[in-house]
Amino acid sequence: MPIITLTTDFGTKDHFVGAVKGAIYNELTDVRIVDISHHVTPFGITEAAYILKNSYQNFPNDTIHIIGVDSEISVENRPIAIELDNQFFICCDNGIISMITNDINPDKIVEITIHNTGDKKFSILDAFVRVACHIARGGKLDVVGKQIDEIKKLYEIQPLVNAEENKIVGSVIYIDNFGNVISNISEKTFNNVGKGREFEVVARNYTFKTIHKKYNDIVDYSIPADKRQDDGKKLAIFNSENFLEISMYRSNLKTVGGASSLLGLDYRDNITVRFL
Amino acid sequence: MPIITLTTDFGTKDHFVGAVKGAIYNELTDVRIVDISHHVTPFGITEAAYILKNSYQNFPNDTIHIIGVDSEISVENRPIAIELDNQFFICCDNGIISMITNDINPDKIVEITIHNTGDKKFSILDAFVRVACHIARGGKLDVVGKQIDEIKKLYEIQPLVNAEENKIVGSVIYIDNFGNVISNISEKTFNNVGKGREFEVVARNYTFKTIHKKYNDIVDYSIPADKRQDDGKKLAIFNSENFLEISMYRSNLKTVGGASSLLGLDYRDNITVRFL
Amino acid sequence: MPIITLTTDFGTKDHFVGAVKGAIYNELTDVRIVDISHHVTPFGITEAAYILKNSYQNFPNDTIHIIGVDSEISVENRPIAIELDNQFFICCDNGIISMITNDINPDKIVEITIHNTGDKKFSILDAFVRVACHIARGGKLDVVGKQIDEIKKLYEIQPLVNAEENKIVGSVIYIDNFGNVISNISEKTFNNVGKGREFEVVARNYTFKTIHKKYNDIVDYSIPADKRQDDGKKLAIFNSENFLEISMYRSNLKTVGGASSLLGLDYRDNITVRFL
Repeated sequence: MPIITLTTDFGTKDHFVGAVKGAIYNELTDVRIVDISHHVTPFGITEAAYILKNSYQNFPNDTIHIIGVDSEISVENRPIAIELDNQFFICCDNGIISMITNDINPDKIVEITIHNTGDKKFSILDAFVRVACHIARGGKLDVVGKQIDEIKKLYEIQPLVNAEENKIVGSVIYIDNFGNVISNISEKTFNNVGKGREFEVVARNYTFKTIHKKYNDIVDYSIPADKRQDDGKKLAIFNSENFLEISMYRSNLKTVGGASSLLGLDYRDNITVRFL
Repeated sequence: MPIITLTTDFGTKDHFVGAVKGAIYNELTDVRIVDISHHVTPFGITEAAYILKNSYQNFPNDTIHIIGVDSEISVENRPIAIELDNQFFICCDNGIISMITNDINPDKIVEITIHNTGDKKFSILDAFVRVACHIARGGKLDVVGKQIDEIKKLYEIQPLVNAEENKIVGSVIYIDNFGNVISNISEKTFNNVGKGREFEVVARNYTFKTIHKKYNDIVDYSIPADKRQDDGKKLAIFNSENFLEISMYRSNLKTVGGASSLLGLDYRDNITVRFL
Repeated sequence: MPIITLTTDFGTKDHFVGAVKGAIYNELTDVRIVDISHHVTPFGITEAAYILKNSYQNFPNDTIHIIGVDSEISVENRPIAIELDNQFFICCDNGIISMITNDINPDKIVEITIHNTGDKKFSILDAFVRVACHIARGGKLDVVGKQIDEIKKLYEIQPLVNAEENKIVGSVIYIDNFGNVISNISEKTFNNVGKGREFEVVARNYTFKTIHKKYNDIVDYSIPADKRQDDGKKLAIFNSENFLEISMYRSNLKTVGGASSLLGLDYRDNITVRFL
């Protein structure tokens, strides 16, 4: 059974998500629809890229991903469909695909042309759903668009390395449900540049000498549980997606606060690794 | 496979939605459950009507819609099941159905009677799920209730036209995820009353002389992208559901604000069209 | 078709839920995934227990429940899989199972051992998904873990009865989407201790002499609807899950407030029943 996923900035209160699902089920009786996220910040293509980058590979081959973020079609924001890493992505050509993958070249890119027939305003319903259902039925990309070679490239998700190769200057690309602050510095980049040297991670005026593998690495289990005071301790960690993250142990963004609120780290702020 | 949709004010944190889904799967092994919205404002039947009005028609024929908003059964709030526009709606008779459709007469209305057997308090579980599963199995409405002719009528979703037919006085019926302010003035009503005359749209002390077809109509693409200052511009538009909407271009309700917060427009505020 | 439910504190914005669903669909083509809740307060095992306690029994036999709350594996937080009441639960041994059921003994408990093979950090993906899919395929618990006899017990969800048996001291265990304040005092405990005596319910400085069966019990339907002033009245009720709850009639937590905000009742505050 084909899988169509949805990643949007529509929220889950309004009718938009229901309308899209209804339209898909109206075309295909045998399909799974999976919500990846509908709470992307409005027009937040970096966020949407981070979310998809860290989830799409778990899905089976041939999964079709609809991205409804910054998807009003214009002369500068053309609808595209892409075959990439054995999966399909349908979105606007606003740079999001270049942030989802840095290493993998798309197998095929088409500019969607079937949306030109009507006067509907809602691009997702007008074009994306029809393209997704076409692919789900085993249809070819060429039928719904014309092949193109280039898509818009954005590199916001990439950190910078200085000429001396002793410093990685990254930035905050995502703040998660726990207030964890996630940088664009991958463990791979860290290892490639650092080559095993000593280091310090600097985020605002906080410095970290260790990057942990698990959150509870900081807990000393030899101390009795009721004597420990680990909750709220700050730490640097390579998270489950292998990005450098600043976290506070067992924090709660809505009550006591998380790393983002307590350390004052926001989207786009710098996070730097200095090798010594 | 039958489709049952859920539109409620239950939120998605509590156990209510999970309990309803479990109960449906316990009765039917072969069914699709689709969440339309669980974030309707508590007891917000106008919101629920707007959400369903703009999504139900995308679903296939015979889809069954459960509406869990203002659904505690009382002598004044009877549970009903309705066949309408080739679909089914199960809700309480609180006026919501009259706001979902103004033009289409229900093919059949029954007052649900099967809930009287137990002492369960949670109407959705007690009655709505059983009725939905009965319909999904191809059962007739008459088996679960007794036919009635009248349902409660509410007209909040309808704008007023003055006697001279040169003014439409509408009101805000919905504020969406982007802070867009949506009125009850449809493009059809606008055209029928306006007959091509010049007009102005007035919302508080803001006036709009143009109603756009797409949000990015206001962008001048001949100006280089980095010189444009369109974000945050206010505009009037007929939205994807063909209602007159006041919007701010690419706004973000949670950070800089949207039309609702920046222009001070709230649910039930007046929006007027004057023809000249 | 097997059913796997998810109850987590991941939120619905991040990639976590999508990643888990993708991983399940990658292992099983024929499975239903049901979201029970992803908005449990971070590390809120009492909340998660309340949510599952009140939803799991609606699901068919053999449903598999993954609980991703406080699920980072450590020497003190072992992953377990449990067969209980004809259903399966996969979680960490943090006390959550003892709060889901007080009366029912698990049929089988295993400590999951298959997670020790890799260095993945994200326990749910590493272990829980694989165990869930194994069970969904009809596999035995013994294959994925070693049998154990004891799990961690927490009694937070239990109220206290004084020696004279004329007082039940309970506490707030949950605040729902409407701001209703839910105690751990069940109707059964109330009846067993009270034996039909007169009583008063005390929550902060508010006293209730009646416990209602339905919210709209407090409405006098002989008064015309436009003359009634019931909205916002406070009441005690045995809710749909048969727990004693303090509510305000038709309240809205986000606008005028609900029982929690208006009466100043928060998680863990005392609610007492005195028998006279």
